[in-house]
Amino acid sequence: MTTVSDQENTSDSAGTPPSAVNAELTTEEIFGAHEGGKLSVAPSTALTTPRDLSIAYTPGVAQVSRAISADETLAARYTWTSQLVAVVSDGTAVLGLGDIGPRASLPVMEGKAALFKSFADLDSFPLVLDTTDNDEIVETLVRLRPSFGAVNLEDVAAPRCFDLERRLIEALDCPVMHDDQHGTAVVTLAALRNACQLSGREFGSLRVVISGAGAAGVACAEILEAAGVGEVVVADSRGVIHAGRDNLTPIKEELARRTNPRGITGELAEALRGADVLIGVSAGTIPAEHVATMAEDAIVFALSNPDPEIHPDTAAAHAAVVATGRSDFPNQINNVLAFPGIFRGALQAGARMISDRMKVAAAEAIAEVAAEALSADYIVPSPLDPRVAPEVTAAVAEAARRDGVATA
Amino acid sequence: MTTVSDQENTSDSAGTPPSAVNAELTTEEIFGAHEGGKLSVAPSTALTTPRDLSIAYTPGVAQVSRAISADETLAARYTWTSQLVAVVSDGTAVLGLGDIGPRASLPVMEGKAALFKSFADLDSFPLVLDTTDNDEIVETLVRLRPSFGAVNLEDVAAPRCFDLERRLIEALDCPVMHDDQHGTAVVTLAALRNACQLSGREFGSLRVVISGAGAAGVACAEILEAAGVGEVVVADSRGVIHAGRDNLTPIKEELARRTNPRGITGELAEALRGADVLIGVSAGTIPAEHVATMAEDAIVFALSNPDPEIHPDTAAAHAAVVATGRSDFPNQINNVLAFPGIFRGALQAGARMISDRMKVAAAEAIAEVAAEALSADYIVPSPLDPRVAPEVTAAVAEAARRDGVATA
Repeated sequence: MTTVSDQENTSDSAGTPPSAVNAELTTEEIFGAHEGGKLSVAPSTALTTPRDLSIAYTPGVAQVSRAISADETLAARYTWTSQLVAVVSDGTAVLGLGDIGPRASLPVMEGKAALFKSFADLDSFPLVLDTTDNDEIVETLVRLRPSFGAVNLEDVAAPRCFDLERRLIEALDCPVMHDDQHGTAVVTLAALRNACQLSGREFGSLRVVISGAGAAGVACAEILEAAGVGEVVVADSRGVIHAGRDNLTPIKEELARRTNPRGITGELAEALRGADVLIGVSAGTIPAEHVATMAEDAIVFALSNPDPEIHPDTAAAHAAVVATGRSDFPNQINNVLAFPGIFRGALQAGARMISDRMKVAAAEAIAEVAAEALSADYIVPSPLDPRVAPEVTAAVAEAARRDGVATA
Repeated sequence: MTTVSDQENTSDSAGTPPSAVNAELTTEEIFGAHEGGKLSVAPSTALTTPRDLSIAYTPGVAQVSRAISADETLAARYTWTSQLVAVVSDGTAVLGLGDIGPRASLPVMEGKAALFKSFADLDSFPLVLDTTDNDEIVETLVRLRPSFGAVNLEDVAAPRCFDLERRLIEALDCPVMHDDQHGTAVVTLAALRNACQLSGREFGSLRVVISGAGAAGVACAEILEAAGVGEVVVADSRGVIHAGRDNLTPIKEELARRTNPRGITGELAEALRGADVLIGVSAGTIPAEHVATMAEDAIVFALSNPDPEIHPDTAAAHAAVVATGRSDFPNQINNVLAFPGIFRGALQAGARMISDRMKVAAAEAIAEVAAEALSADYIVPSPLDPRVAPEVTAAVAEAARRDGVATA
């Protein structure tokens, strides 16, 4: 029996045993690098003279405060908020570790903030919340709204993450994105576009099966629809999601309405038969014999970490293109390709929100960077490719303007 | 008639016209320096290689998160919170500008965070709140408690600031200090100690009059009592605060009980007659003829900004020692002498709170730095004196341990 689960999938190498990916990393080295935390806040320019102080603090700062008081839109120009992302988590679905709480999640959020600076020169700080009540989280961020320019929601458990993100988008007039959903979905779409390019497939006639209906699975279904994929079928641990199934959560009810047009029922294996694409975003395993029933030259993204749903070597026997979330195999689907540029582009455009078209534009930009040297082992750029974030930034800002959500 | 008010006093040079203190500062220069804000968050160590990423983010970070999940006290060691101050404001009493709101207050809070880094190598970020409801502010910071190590409350209007600070101290197991109260009070105490040294006075027999019962006035009264000053009398815009007065706010009722042992009534002038010390922390003016009635070799701290309650040259005709909040006169009472070291010392000691003794210890340390070259024009160190913060840090950490509030 195919076992998939709703557990949050992370498309980075979370929880991967150091022995597998980075044999040389030692515990001493890791903890040593975390002593005192990983972030530092400093003045953009040094304050060393009385003159520096008089400009940055009193009396000079009073002129700036007075100007913003007279015209609040000036806050975007004269404070750091226009390039500042709050990295927000309640610690309920952290990497592969699950609900470890806000304090234990903080090193991950510090890491995320470090990535924002390293990849997109954005400032950010972690806000980890000692509540898992969506009402309280929304209320807290509404009160803090003048403090930041955007919200990267991180590692919040499904299905609560869907409601929380939706409500934050409604409540805050700024970019809000749950990266575990959309970061993964954007990079998956980029990879799928290039994989289709390789095998001569068109999105419109594509049959895609998503195994896993957690944060990443739901967002993948959404973005594939937005990108015009012909057929999307989603399966969770109880099998294929279809309109006739009982006891669906609200988000799965919506999936049942919007996906699976042919009304497939039963287990994942039923959906896989003849499918072009399998996207594994679960914590389960998928037997090779089921993958073998897919269409010729199938595309398999086995993104579960640390253990892909099917080993990439096994998958390769039945598929033309294989991707994982791991850095030690080709085609790593890594969120870091997406979120730095998405937030930078959204902030640059003064976007009130991050629209579907902005996400699709990000995916296209990522795919485009890899397009010049496309092969079955190179459908997405390396996570460290410095060309990616600027391209994503430009594409997202442009899409925001086209979409009418830009203000700058 | 003597006019004093309850308006918040700032002991820095807030609102001082550039022409008075920094004739050379231009508007272009000030706004230019504020473009994009004044803070930057960066990784403590650069993330440039896959190995760096594997340590700071996945998979390495999972080990650290797992360790904190098993023992939450490790968060102090392996996250940045143990040296992280949240600079919190609702923007209701910003510098000399009053209630300009959270967005307009943000440049001031960014400046404050810059000072924390520059003077005490502490990290900090501004949290400006779009609420002035104390219940909501407390609730918000309780929810965010895992995100920071201490709270610097800033520019919250009196009398609400007293209740807010008290409740935050109760609700949070970490150092909380309203700097407009205690930063000012600590530096004032330091200056007073040295001024008394110069004029051969003892605290026990000292008669001190405080003009202004806002944030700074109330905190000055408290710390002077804690330091053993013989007699403290406080006056607000309606005159001397005494037990017989009607319609006192709760904080002034408490002042009436704890100060003014001889039961002086009437206007400020009544209290000044024969007094040793005048501390002006109001937005008012005090006529020279009233200062002239003070004791011989009087001590006058006219801290209102930009306009001292009495011009220092005028005061000098009747007083042996004069201090102001301005950088263009001797003896500038500037909070920056206190708060960086107070927070650093408290965090270093793992203090659960900032006790009175820690504040008095900070004042003593500040006074001690100036003691070697004491004169009527040098009763406190320069705000830029690099010796101050380390001395204050050590004294505060030591006092925390003596006081039993330290955990490290």
